[in-house]
Amino acid sequence: MIRFITTGGTIDKIYFDALSQFEVGESVLNEMLGEALVHIDYEIVPLLQKDSLELTDEDRRQLRAYIENDDALQFVVTHGTDTMPETAEGLAGIDDKTVVLTGSLSPARFRTTDAVFNVGMAVAAVQTSRPGVYIAMSGQVFEAGKVRKNREANRFEPLD
Amino acid sequence: MIRFITTGGTIDKIYFDALSQFEVGESVLNEMLGEALVHIDYEIVPLLQKDSLELTDEDRRQLRAYIENDDALQFVVTHGTDTMPETAEGLAGIDDKTVVLTGSLSPARFRTTDAVFNVGMAVAAVQTSRPGVYIAMSGQVFEAGKVRKNREANRFEPLD
Amino acid sequence: MIRFITTGGTIDKIYFDALSQFEVGESVLNEMLGEALVHIDYEIVPLLQKDSLELTDEDRRQLRAYIENDDALQFVVTHGTDTMPETAEGLAGIDDKTVVLTGSLSPARFRTTDAVFNVGMAVAAVQTSRPGVYIAMSGQVFEAGKVRKNREANRFEPLD
Amino acid sequence: MIRFITTGGTIDKIYFDALSQFEVGESVLNEMLGEALVHIDYEIVPLLQKDSLELTDEDRRQLRAYIENDDALQFVVTHGTDTMPETAEGLAGIDDKTVVLTGSLSPARFRTTDAVFNVGMAVAAVQTSRPGVYIAMSGQVFEAGKVRKNREANRFEPLD
Repeated sequence: MIRFITTGGTIDKIYFDALSQFEVGESVLNEMLGEALVHIDYEIVPLLQKDSLELTDEDRRQLRAYIENDDALQFVVTHGTDTMPETAEGLAGIDDKTVVLTGSLSPARFRTTDAVFNVGMAVAAVQTSRPGVYIAMSGQVFEAGKVRKNREANRFEPLD
Repeated sequence: MIRFITTGGTIDKIYFDALSQFEVGESVLNEMLGEALVHIDYEIVPLLQKDSLELTDEDRRQLRAYIENDDALQFVVTHGTDTMPETAEGLAGIDDKTVVLTGSLSPARFRTTDAVFNVGMAVAAVQTSRPGVYIAMSGQVFEAGKVRKNREANRFEPLD
Repeated sequence: MIRFITTGGTIDKIYFDALSQFEVGESVLNEMLGEALVHIDYEIVPLLQKDSLELTDEDRRQLRAYIENDDALQFVVTHGTDTMPETAEGLAGIDDKTVVLTGSLSPARFRTTDAVFNVGMAVAAVQTSRPGVYIAMSGQVFEAGKVRKNREANRFEPLD
Repeated sequence: MIRFITTGGTIDKIYFDALSQFEVGESVLNEMLGEALVHIDYEIVPLLQKDSLELTDEDRRQLRAYIENDDALQFVVTHGTDTMPETAEGLAGIDDKTVVLTGSLSPARFRTTDAVFNVGMAVAAVQTSRPGVYIAMSGQVFEAGKVRKNREANRFEPLD
């Protein structure tokens, strides 16, 4: 069984008309997995709905506690991109479960988006990787602690 | 470096107006990887353009020879779904490279399609799996020889 | 009230997996009008499901009879493109109602398609045009009898 | 010849990663008309890039002057929805040209949007309507001065 945990971020951004504000809303994950014709046992847990720049230490402790106390062994965590590497490092030491963080650089509801591909990567990586914490972004699967977001180039890359 | 090999199938179907015929055309892979914002070293080799029901033993020998003689270590093969399990079994014994077959149940050019998710899965699986031959479909990564297409249910599932 | 009549054609093409055949299926009109956030009084009548090359004189008589006997005054007819001009001419003489034929050169279910734009044109043209028979294609509203499909250029154009 | 004038609004909203801000950017009109396979003579003039709540009297004078001084006879104006009815009324008295305002309630770059349908309506209405000023939204073509946006219901409707 794969446990999906959503925490907000660009991937989940939706748009409300009134004052042209983007807001983080209901996860698009369920719709995405349906369209992908997946036949796996999964559940989606909406844990947080925040831009990743606004995530606090307490939020990260909550995420870690959730994973540690849950009986699932495979976790896909959707997350804003700006602090995804920090959150991944904050999960270090979880050695008996496989956790893959992913997200997207443009919202899943856009016509052109990296969201679907990235979630596909995460779903495969969580099944095929040894226990540990990973980030699936930019067409690559990185180990936690060995990746950074290059904001100027708009991509994730290995930490030197 | 990831070597993508396209062989045709539903994922690559395109539509020509004249007599409402679908035909297998230029691969949509390059466009898909661009939209997914991947930053990996890759090359796409268009090897065959066939419905998978029309693939011959000779076609499969050609695919196997290509993989064996190529210097890449990671291969993603796009393929029609109907005989994907047979082709995977035909690649058995390639033990020093990782080969992941994928495709889709509806064309990549459709507005609603499983193609992008599946290729995302394959790109992750080829990086994270031990050498061997795999199929990434229906939200799962299967080992060659342990999977079949359930045509009625329109999904891939473990072989009992 | 706008009466939509569907007769088949590329706009309604859907894809069934089995043998890679496109088939004309349930109209996508209802979904399209919902997404377009239309707030008009309308009903959709699925009259025929044919490629327009296969439409017979009897089919065209049936369409004409339907329009003449219906109490609506505004009709949007979705139709295959190959014989759309012939069908429009066959409706000539209906002078107390406004009839707009439209369709698309690529299926509405494709990610890239002219279908939505064309139906938008037809919905406006049927409200703003004097009674008569029209074709809305290629960004233009043509009068019946003054338009042809240029198959090579894949567009509709004025008849000289 | 149809002159398209873009003034900003939701239809043109694009998304920049940095701080999750939507911004009004380059018009998507050209891409949209290409995908719609239009074969009409047209030019796009980017006049303003504003949310319609921020449009000033001076902006509206500029728009009116542009239309009055231009030699085209058919104008499609893309515009934010919140004050589209006011702008339409501000163009009242232009009696020798046909002007159709349109826009969308969700951005054209979204996967699900009313933008393409609405521009299709406007392109037809500008060709088939008598000179005057109109709004094409919510599946309807309204005359200026006879329409309002119902913000709660998220639609345009006739003014009582």
